[in-house]
Amino acid sequence: MREGSIRTTSFDVAALAGVSQSAVSRAFKPGSSIAAETREKVLDAARKLNYVPNSIASSLTTHRSNIVAIILGDLNNPFYTHVLQTFGRELQALNRHMLVFTLTEDMHTDDAIMQLLPYQVDGVILTSAQLSTRMVGMCHDRGIPVVLFNRYIPNTGAFGVRCDNPAGGRQIAEAFLAAGARTFAMITGDPKGTTSADRATGFVDRLLDAGIPRSAINSYEGGSSYEGGVEAAKAMMANDATPPDAIFGINDIMAMGAMDVLRIEYGLRVPEDVMVAGFDDIPEGARLPYRLTTVRQPINRMVRATLDLLNLENPDSSVDIASDLPIGGHLVWRNTIPPAKSE
Amino acid sequence: MREGSIRTTSFDVAALAGVSQSAVSRAFKPGSSIAAETREKVLDAARKLNYVPNSIASSLTTHRSNIVAIILGDLNNPFYTHVLQTFGRELQALNRHMLVFTLTEDMHTDDAIMQLLPYQVDGVILTSAQLSTRMVGMCHDRGIPVVLFNRYIPNTGAFGVRCDNPAGGRQIAEAFLAAGARTFAMITGDPKGTTSADRATGFVDRLLDAGIPRSAINSYEGGSSYEGGVEAAKAMMANDATPPDAIFGINDIMAMGAMDVLRIEYGLRVPEDVMVAGFDDIPEGARLPYRLTTVRQPINRMVRATLDLLNLENPDSSVDIASDLPIGGHLVWRNTIPPAKSE
Repeated sequence: MREGSIRTTSFDVAALAGVSQSAVSRAFKPGSSIAAETREKVLDAARKLNYVPNSIASSLTTHRSNIVAIILGDLNNPFYTHVLQTFGRELQALNRHMLVFTLTEDMHTDDAIMQLLPYQVDGVILTSAQLSTRMVGMCHDRGIPVVLFNRYIPNTGAFGVRCDNPAGGRQIAEAFLAAGARTFAMITGDPKGTTSADRATGFVDRLLDAGIPRSAINSYEGGSSYEGGVEAAKAMMANDATPPDAIFGINDIMAMGAMDVLRIEYGLRVPEDVMVAGFDDIPEGARLPYRLTTVRQPINRMVRATLDLLNLENPDSSVDIASDLPIGGHLVWRNTIPPAKSE
Repeated sequence: MREGSIRTTSFDVAALAGVSQSAVSRAFKPGSSIAAETREKVLDAARKLNYVPNSIASSLTTHRSNIVAIILGDLNNPFYTHVLQTFGRELQALNRHMLVFTLTEDMHTDDAIMQLLPYQVDGVILTSAQLSTRMVGMCHDRGIPVVLFNRYIPNTGAFGVRCDNPAGGRQIAEAFLAAGARTFAMITGDPKGTTSADRATGFVDRLLDAGIPRSAINSYEGGSSYEGGVEAAKAMMANDATPPDAIFGINDIMAMGAMDVLRIEYGLRVPEDVMVAGFDDIPEGARLPYRLTTVRQPINRMVRATLDLLNLENPDSSVDIASDLPIGGHLVWRNTIPPAKSE
């Protein structure tokens, strides 16, 4: 048998590291309190002896795998790459691991969860739009919390962490109105989700309140992607040779696609010829060619609220459901809406 | 006890679905041959009865978890988002799941693998640069293959799937030379990895062969990010008020950052005042404002080669190590290098 065989025990590791067996156990147990130096000693000894504890066997008794599943609907929007990075960092700090599921077009979220349940995940985070009440029930029966990120689905029993999307839509409408805009276009996202609809509702309601006629507000589907933003702007220009005063991209990546095509293919200046705003505040929208005015989604706070609702540290305690309330975003002024006109 | 208790067995599901128990087992077993209609019947019945098989228990006997671990070094480069999406799609088609680890600055790849081993993953894919021979040995002792994606680390015993980076660097040098460039700058990436160094070597060697003096080739560190590309271009302009004839961004995202700052802050035209090329062919570089000439990394082929080396379907058979050979990329001509000058 080779040195470092799989039969090495925690006793051997403790002996080599000069620590207690309990320290070995804590070094490998997520969230344990252990001095960094002691942990290093244990890991060094474990490496030398080729020792690894068997999490799978221990999860059979604890019914906890220390794995959180994340189901991603759309990585074409860089917002979700930043979300994934943030969850990765925060879950790692909690010594949890991420099982990542990227949904393909033909797969329902229910089927994805069905495939993840056998791993006894400690929680499920969803950024996709569809989910059945039945599936949420199945997770809850197993003590597995489900949190929808950047959306909610009414009456499913799942928590939904989100920015205050209607309020954000209203803020964009106000900024456009203050700068003198009177005709508008929206580029909308996923029609199945609540996020795009809520932002559009806030935006349109505020414009109607200000006396803008509904006929002065057009809407184009942009599918939540850069390419969708390009196509929506082209459809808008084909529809009417003069652009509206202001365009609200329901997310930044669509606003960026629209800006590029309007400037490069139609020779329009932003904001002189057409104002543009987005939503999310992805780092890409802050770059030199865009300097996009937008509503910042508080990703860090949303991620922490999600982890609070998953209640990983004390799964048997009750959850603070206040974390399910919408979190306020805020307007980030850059260059794509001019300052308010003074009367 | 509630309807749909955890004690429901595959026998109950088979009875309700009107199929055999073996069909139930196949419906949940990754890679099994089963008619889509039969699988749907089983899943419907399983949902009604709230039945889920316990993969964790079965992995104890098979020593296979159907989980592949992916350790990502850098999601700031969109190339890796596309890589993650491609692995997600391909692994799902094989009914495998992805445990994703995003490395933080202070964490060594060895520690990440140490944390993943207890899950009895079926393979490890790495896109980060550091890895010890000892850790590769630990994985191999457990029958867990390790594949480095878009890099290799000499003498570790791990496979390294990659594009032919020196050849790609040479192609860019030739395109610049043919268009009449005589002075050059490189914006380099991660100094710890092989990828940036190999591209730079191919580029510089080809220029030296063409009689370009080494003093006409400057190099700036860009850290593999958009922001790094911006800073490298600024450093270049601070160093010498006249730009070089041609800039090679060792990856597209750095080339994009450089293009933006050179055009917007220094008023230079691309390619009239300065030629630019990248490497990777990320979709972002093909967009209207960039139309970047670059070398396409064959992501789909690289992902399939990685999966071949992981040998998930027949872990006891030998691997075709030809998949470890560099895969040729090819030059994608767009707008940032003019056509060859005719003499």
